[in-house]
Amino acid sequence: MKIVVDAMGTDDAPHSEVAGCVRAFKQQSDLEIVLVGPPSILEAELKKYHYPAGCISIEPAADVIGMDEKPAEALRKKPGSSIAVGARLLADGKGDAFVSAGNTGAVAAASLLYIGRAPGVKRPGIASLFPSRSGFSIVIDVGANVSCKGVNLYQFAVMGEVYYRAIFGKEKPSVGLLSLGEEEEKGYEAIFEAHKLLEASSLNYAGHVEGSDILRGTVDVVTVDGFTGNALLKFAEAVPSMVFSGLRNEAKRDFIVRIGAWMSRAALRRLRKRWDYAEYGGAPLLGVKSGVIICHGKSSPKAIKNAVLVADKFGRAGGARQIAEMVGSGNDER
Amino acid sequence: MKIVVDAMGTDDAPHSEVAGCVRAFKQQSDLEIVLVGPPSILEAELKKYHYPAGCISIEPAADVIGMDEKPAEALRKKPGSSIAVGARLLADGKGDAFVSAGNTGAVAAASLLYIGRAPGVKRPGIASLFPSRSGFSIVIDVGANVSCKGVNLYQFAVMGEVYYRAIFGKEKPSVGLLSLGEEEEKGYEAIFEAHKLLEASSLNYAGHVEGSDILRGTVDVVTVDGFTGNALLKFAEAVPSMVFSGLRNEAKRDFIVRIGAWMSRAALRRLRKRWDYAEYGGAPLLGVKSGVIICHGKSSPKAIKNAVLVADKFGRAGGARQIAEMVGSGNDER
Repeated sequence: MKIVVDAMGTDDAPHSEVAGCVRAFKQQSDLEIVLVGPPSILEAELKKYHYPAGCISIEPAADVIGMDEKPAEALRKKPGSSIAVGARLLADGKGDAFVSAGNTGAVAAASLLYIGRAPGVKRPGIASLFPSRSGFSIVIDVGANVSCKGVNLYQFAVMGEVYYRAIFGKEKPSVGLLSLGEEEEKGYEAIFEAHKLLEASSLNYAGHVEGSDILRGTVDVVTVDGFTGNALLKFAEAVPSMVFSGLRNEAKRDFIVRIGAWMSRAALRRLRKRWDYAEYGGAPLLGVKSGVIICHGKSSPKAIKNAVLVADKFGRAGGARQIAEMVGSGNDER
Repeated sequence: MKIVVDAMGTDDAPHSEVAGCVRAFKQQSDLEIVLVGPPSILEAELKKYHYPAGCISIEPAADVIGMDEKPAEALRKKPGSSIAVGARLLADGKGDAFVSAGNTGAVAAASLLYIGRAPGVKRPGIASLFPSRSGFSIVIDVGANVSCKGVNLYQFAVMGEVYYRAIFGKEKPSVGLLSLGEEEEKGYEAIFEAHKLLEASSLNYAGHVEGSDILRGTVDVVTVDGFTGNALLKFAEAVPSMVFSGLRNEAKRDFIVRIGAWMSRAALRRLRKRWDYAEYGGAPLLGVKSGVIICHGKSSPKAIKNAVLVADKFGRAGGARQIAEMVGSGNDER
């Protein structure tokens, strides 16, 4: 697998990207990585590390799209940006997957523009991992589509199921449709449509689920419109600092709590990490022709390493092709 | 203030209701309470307590609507249920506010049917408290309206602002509109409309907010459609057990963590309580002619006591009348 990595996306680019790619080789030695960015900067950074010769190449890209730029406008103005160049490499068959920690909207727009939707997919969706009691659940869409039709929600479920299987190796991941309760009559028109499509599909469909089921791990994959999914994702991202800053404040006021928290610190750190979705390899944009993994701007080298490994795993499993096949058959059924 | 309390709503009714009402007198001695339910059962329960003579009366209601019954159907079939009888007491001017821990949909439907919307209110909304770094934020709507127009989102903001002021005594609570980011161009049609109405209003409007801002306490009141609000509420309800069961598992595996967690137990209990919204007096149905407070079916006596006190506070502040006045003026502005 040849993984194209935007080297200019994180807040401390290209350090996290280069360090993350070098670390990825230690876990998966038969990778090939193309780093996209300004050659002189990347060469200087690469010199700091030891890595298998010939496994990392550089593709020049002079521009960088900022986090606050408007996606479509930025892509038009900066065709030579690392995001645009990276996406075009995949379009030209010069890479199998794309990893970027840059402007999420720009990565999604470039992927649609250059790589294109997988056949049959109406709208790609962004999936995100959430911690659950039984491990992880996947929520899709978390922001690519503000409002959705039934067929979109159905296709998100298909895409999330393929991704979950590829990454976690579970043969028949279960799928839930987010609504206001278990009753079938709750929801709105798109929910009713999606419910029918999901019931008629070959998916392991568990029916309606609620927000609590994401954390309970009732199902592996939760399909939802991107507006609600985004609200849940942002809310979940704020949970650990809310909980742990609360504990810190308690510890400041009380010496016994301070010692107790210190004794539990390794456990608390592990708990906190479970909420840090960036640790687990970013959020895939599913439904495009190749694997595209969008990482948080604050990604550490470890997060980038995990994203590269996830991109590799998804690519080897033929995830994008599987999605096209399953979505195609779903459409035929209608 | 005369507070009508459905005595048959909680899982261990009428114990929590009766105990909660008796406790409410200790904090607010000039209350009058009407308990609605089967007289023989309520009289037997009331005998267990001491309370100011003549302050608690009983209104007979033979039926109870179950948690799993369909709201509209159940109301039709059981006009003599505690929920229907309680709501009718308000309609007949025999009470100033209604507290029920029964079937949420049935309480909302009975309130609309018997008490009716406040003048100018298009659609009532259910508000809920969320813990935030700075105390509490209010999210409205959390489930009464699956899809919303701009004017609904605007009115939710008005209603939430009035409630926040009445309960927390803050003069100009800030209001945010939930969307996908701070940029004004993100969202969908109803969001754009609501944004315009909010900008033109006299509210302390802070613009778009994200899911994370609810916990950060960026604003006091967050307005959102009931589908997304319900997903957030249910998600938040599952957070404490997710976090604390994780800590329990860590403690089981490691003796040092077990001692540390034991030393911090008072602090952990306080942290956990902050996430237990039932502790804080239930969720008001705002936009009806009187105060209606909907409590969780699992409400403890303390939760019922708080709900009664909140209903009293909202009633004394003339909350329902204030909402009608502000919503009316907002409509004129359009």
